[in-house]
Amino acid sequence: MTAPHGQRPHVVIVGGGFGGLSAVRALRRHDVDVTLVDKRAYNTFQPLLYQVATATLNPGDVTYFQRAVRAVNPHVRFRLGEVVRMDHAARTVSLDSGEDLAYDHLIIAAGVTANFFGIPGAEDNALPIYTRDGALDVRTRLFTGLEAAATEGDEHGDVRVVVVGGGATGVETAGALAEMRNHDLQVTYPELDPQRTHVTLVEMAPVLLGAFHEGSQAYAKASLEKRGVDLRLGTKVAEVRPDGVVVGDGELIPAGLVIWASGIAVSSSVADWGVPQGKGGRILVDDHLRVQGLPDVYAVGDIALDEGNALPQLAQPALQGGKYVAKQIVAGLAGAPELPPFRYRDKGSLATIGRSAAVAEISHLPDLKGFPAWAVWTGVHVFSLLGNRNRAATMVNLTAKYAFWNKSHNAIVGDLPTVRERARQRRAS
Amino acid sequence: MTAPHGQRPHVVIVGGGFGGLSAVRALRRHDVDVTLVDKRAYNTFQPLLYQVATATLNPGDVTYFQRAVRAVNPHVRFRLGEVVRMDHAARTVSLDSGEDLAYDHLIIAAGVTANFFGIPGAEDNALPIYTRDGALDVRTRLFTGLEAAATEGDEHGDVRVVVVGGGATGVETAGALAEMRNHDLQVTYPELDPQRTHVTLVEMAPVLLGAFHEGSQAYAKASLEKRGVDLRLGTKVAEVRPDGVVVGDGELIPAGLVIWASGIAVSSSVADWGVPQGKGGRILVDDHLRVQGLPDVYAVGDIALDEGNALPQLAQPALQGGKYVAKQIVAGLAGAPELPPFRYRDKGSLATIGRSAAVAEISHLPDLKGFPAWAVWTGVHVFSLLGNRNRAATMVNLTAKYAFWNKSHNAIVGDLPTVRERARQRRAS
Repeated sequence: MTAPHGQRPHVVIVGGGFGGLSAVRALRRHDVDVTLVDKRAYNTFQPLLYQVATATLNPGDVTYFQRAVRAVNPHVRFRLGEVVRMDHAARTVSLDSGEDLAYDHLIIAAGVTANFFGIPGAEDNALPIYTRDGALDVRTRLFTGLEAAATEGDEHGDVRVVVVGGGATGVETAGALAEMRNHDLQVTYPELDPQRTHVTLVEMAPVLLGAFHEGSQAYAKASLEKRGVDLRLGTKVAEVRPDGVVVGDGELIPAGLVIWASGIAVSSSVADWGVPQGKGGRILVDDHLRVQGLPDVYAVGDIALDEGNALPQLAQPALQGGKYVAKQIVAGLAGAPELPPFRYRDKGSLATIGRSAAVAEISHLPDLKGFPAWAVWTGVHVFSLLGNRNRAATMVNLTAKYAFWNKSHNAIVGDLPTVRERARQRRAS
Repeated sequence: MTAPHGQRPHVVIVGGGFGGLSAVRALRRHDVDVTLVDKRAYNTFQPLLYQVATATLNPGDVTYFQRAVRAVNPHVRFRLGEVVRMDHAARTVSLDSGEDLAYDHLIIAAGVTANFFGIPGAEDNALPIYTRDGALDVRTRLFTGLEAAATEGDEHGDVRVVVVGGGATGVETAGALAEMRNHDLQVTYPELDPQRTHVTLVEMAPVLLGAFHEGSQAYAKASLEKRGVDLRLGTKVAEVRPDGVVVGDGELIPAGLVIWASGIAVSSSVADWGVPQGKGGRILVDDHLRVQGLPDVYAVGDIALDEGNALPQLAQPALQGGKYVAKQIVAGLAGAPELPPFRYRDKGSLATIGRSAAVAEISHLPDLKGFPAWAVWTGVHVFSLLGNRNRAATMVNLTAKYAFWNKSHNAIVGDLPTVRERARQRRAS
């Protein structure tokens, strides 16, 4: 059983995403030792992962080395690993390394993973953009498909991508793909007929951006249609097959690549963590973000659910929750009275569709559309990245993409299989 | 058999490195169609790959999408593939896709690969920094080793990296590793004792930077020693084992990671290309860079050898050779007299050792050392990158590394295996 050597209270934080890192930051000037556990060596800025998938940003632009947070809070130690068990009577968190961490206070901020809602074939045939690896897989599949079609010459089949989900991620992904088709492919893939390259977005609800206002929804719809995205609203996905998506009425929408931008779920391993779980497996918390029945255990962000006050699964509730919980722990240690219940302050919603096209709903401001919204989107996202280097590098790459429009057609790609390698892979599978 | 549809002469270029792309550029305003063949989808700026291996730059900062060169020369088409055969009587180049390219003029600029000189165990146990993938493998092994030692706690074994080769790549890699050990590890890996983290450089010659002047050699030696690199000059590698490097006298230098920065060789597939090969398998050319006996076939860069005038295997001879050959082809098509023989203009040599420490030997200028040399090194390398985006992004990342010294400790890492995953990998192997 390990705890830091000092006699200071020990806060264990599981998950170094928005919620976990905002708690790390909020604890930096206080007299506590912190152990941060994450199964990845880096933090991921998920709102920009679709830009990695569509080859505009480097994975390194939207990830941040977890161990570098010690520059922010020197009382943090990091453990790379997965939590396999928690024992709240003994106050321990057990890692896959075999190490048991003793905690005085525990913050669970482990986030969520993709949810395929049990739709047949979805997990096997659709690629979610929810992790760095997922985004890189989409990028490789996308460019491998383009290369294959280009090699086949004039007789190539149509190139078809289907995006499932009409929330911010789905809209942004479909918009970026349409911009690539409309502006880059004629230069980089002259072998392909743009008329035979298709981007389709499938959404069960009758509108895009369900969480936004009506004006923003209409603007997003018009912007995607203007860019030639085939919109299938009010359309339910019944099955995902290797050759496409079967929708409610039995129609097959053919696709060489299906991108999953719909739904998130709690990891199944949470069942071993000794915490009460509610809808979707989320951890049940009270109005102080305490896990029900466990006074020194908190849960924040996507993984937490206060049934009396369900919050959207976005960055802001996680950021605010992490900070609130850190303050709550510090107040408790100081013998100060308990904080009032957690209140989420909705700062607004943003989504971008393409160059100079975005929607921005900021609290206390009128809704923005078009270039002003796009400028706000860019500023907010870049400012939210951890570290000046990531901010500057992302700004450079987004600027290159949007300012040198139609002049540079660079794309950040990895290794693509050649024709011979593709044949070998097909034989092996 | 495919050739572009027009009646314009068709130049096939095999390899999109420094030599091939400089030919593509030089041909951009002339009346020829160009097909560029490369087995990778991107061009790699090899001189900065060691910065990818040591987690300062993104792979996307030092690679450039091959298909984006059409923005430079719209008469280029690209083929992703490997050359499996050439038939110079029929004037064809056969790709692994089965496609045969008919050429009027052929430029072979396929570069070289790592050379292990037949040293036992080297190919299996040492990692070369010669490709994007190679650099990423080094990065993953390096950080996996640090994480493993950090997890093991106070009893961890010493962390030892051996760099084989004292040329520019070896010196720059060892310098970057030493700077990481001296400046970053105390923040990011507080679990490790810096005294027990070792960087060793092994070089057969009695000096570092054999191609440089004596003053630069002495400066590089002193700079690495000052940074705590264990230098083993005049030391021959006899064997590379999983646990380290055995040197000439039978001593084992223990190492968890052996980086190979010594020697390059021509790919074995060149034997099927119907061209005369000389020392090290390099393609024999005359003083006009024509492949001996094949008047319409040229070879440039590392892969070419003019026995009467052997050139260093660096970027500059390739860049100048590609441009010269393009001019030669254009002159021939115009019926102009043959160009005078190719003359390589040595513009100088550069190597960096650490922050504000470098050597620069520029023709017609006195040799530079220290900060002025480092500033020249940075400027030349950044300026040499293809594309404004890569230039700006690299400048940002190098600036963050050197200007915010000791404040930011970000590192660009990928996925690292957790302890459980490492155990699983060990069992599987």
